Amino acid sequence: MFIQASTITFSLPEWLATYAGSYRASVDVAERMRFVIGAATKNVGQKTGGPFAAAVFERETGRLVSLGVNLVVSQNSSVLHAEMVAIMLAQQRLGAYDLGGPGMTAHELVSSAEPCAMCFGAIPWSGVRYLTTGASSDDARSIGFDEGPKPQNWIQELESRGIQVCTGVERELAREVLLLYRQTGGHIYNSKEK
Amino acid sequence: MFIQASTITFSLPEWLATYAGSYRASVDVAERMRFVIGAATKNVGQKTGGPFAAAVFERETGRLVSLGVNLVVSQNSSVLHAEMVAIMLAQQRLGAYDLGGPGMTAHELVSSAEPCAMCFGAIPWSGVRYLTTGASSDDARSIGFDEGPKPQNWIQELESRGIQVCTGVERELAREVLLLYRQTGGHIYNSKEK
Repeated sequence: MFIQASTITFSLPEWLATYAGSYRASVDVAERMRFVIGAATKNVGQKTGGPFAAAVFERETGRLVSLGVNLVVSQNSSVLHAEMVAIMLAQQRLGAYDLGGPGMTAHELVSSAEPCAMCFGAIPWSGVRYLTTGASSDDARSIGFDEGPKPQNWIQELESRGIQVCTGVERELAREVLLLYRQTGGHIYNSKEK
Repeated sequence: MFIQASTITFSLPEWLATYAGSYRASVDVAERMRFVIGAATKNVGQKTGGPFAAAVFERETGRLVSLGVNLVVSQNSSVLHAEMVAIMLAQQRLGAYDLGGPGMTAHELVSSAEPCAMCFGAIPWSGVRYLTTGASSDDARSIGFDEGPKPQNWIQELESRGIQVCTGVERELAREVLLLYRQTGGHIYNSKEK
């Protein structure tokens, strides 16, 4: 008889909580981004995943709610892009499936790169009201990562759903992490037909 | 100091493993779909989530690899659509982030409804080679669920990535579960601007 597991469990790298603890709330979005890019760099250096990180902040105060990194290979889950990890952690922490629910402060997702098709689709459901990105989809593609079937007008689609998008924040710094990953022989996992 | 959790954990409803255990491998896709729709019906009856279920099967043998249901509200996670749960469980069970990896048998995702924008984007990364759906996106929209910014040509996009798509299998039966959910006062959670 088929016996199915009763839980889904993912373990985060040990260094992540320590690194998250080093953050000091900042009202400067570029500073938040540098903190997130630092996590992506660390994920490459520690060989715990792909060169991507993302975090959920309270938009006004800059308080950190969650920090995620790409864990696809280390946790054997194609779902665990950095944005998804950050969203799952933030919702787990706040006990809410909607980070934009009644009475909640506005939340911002800061990602070291523009979202792939999956993360793009996940963002409206998460309830974040702001998305801030570093490296572009082209930067990610240039080192071999596939962004998936994301609509050309993805920014407009998010904005029409009340999510304010700001791209290219500390883009060069974010791009360097991608190049570092390629240079250090990081695994470029990918979809089938690309 | 900010202390972040060291794991992400989701609990599945107790009835799910028992129901999954009742499945007998079938080479008939419609039969697999009726099994999946049965899980969606049970999810509504047990009040453990939205009216959606999905499962990963070995395409050839019909062997069940994982069964997921929508757990957004009960687990406080906007990511936990049925397809995502089924994909995460299948990858956790097989210890592989790519269900279409070298030497693996072809896997099929059977979902009681067409995917939303997030699940559509997640499917290419999962490695499944077949997608079979029941109720249409219009059926889901008609009871108030938002499908998100999914491209019009989503089937073509998946097929261009080597994923064979078959829609409308046992559609009427799948649609009935959606209507049942609405009739029994199920919560229609949604994105902001709809």
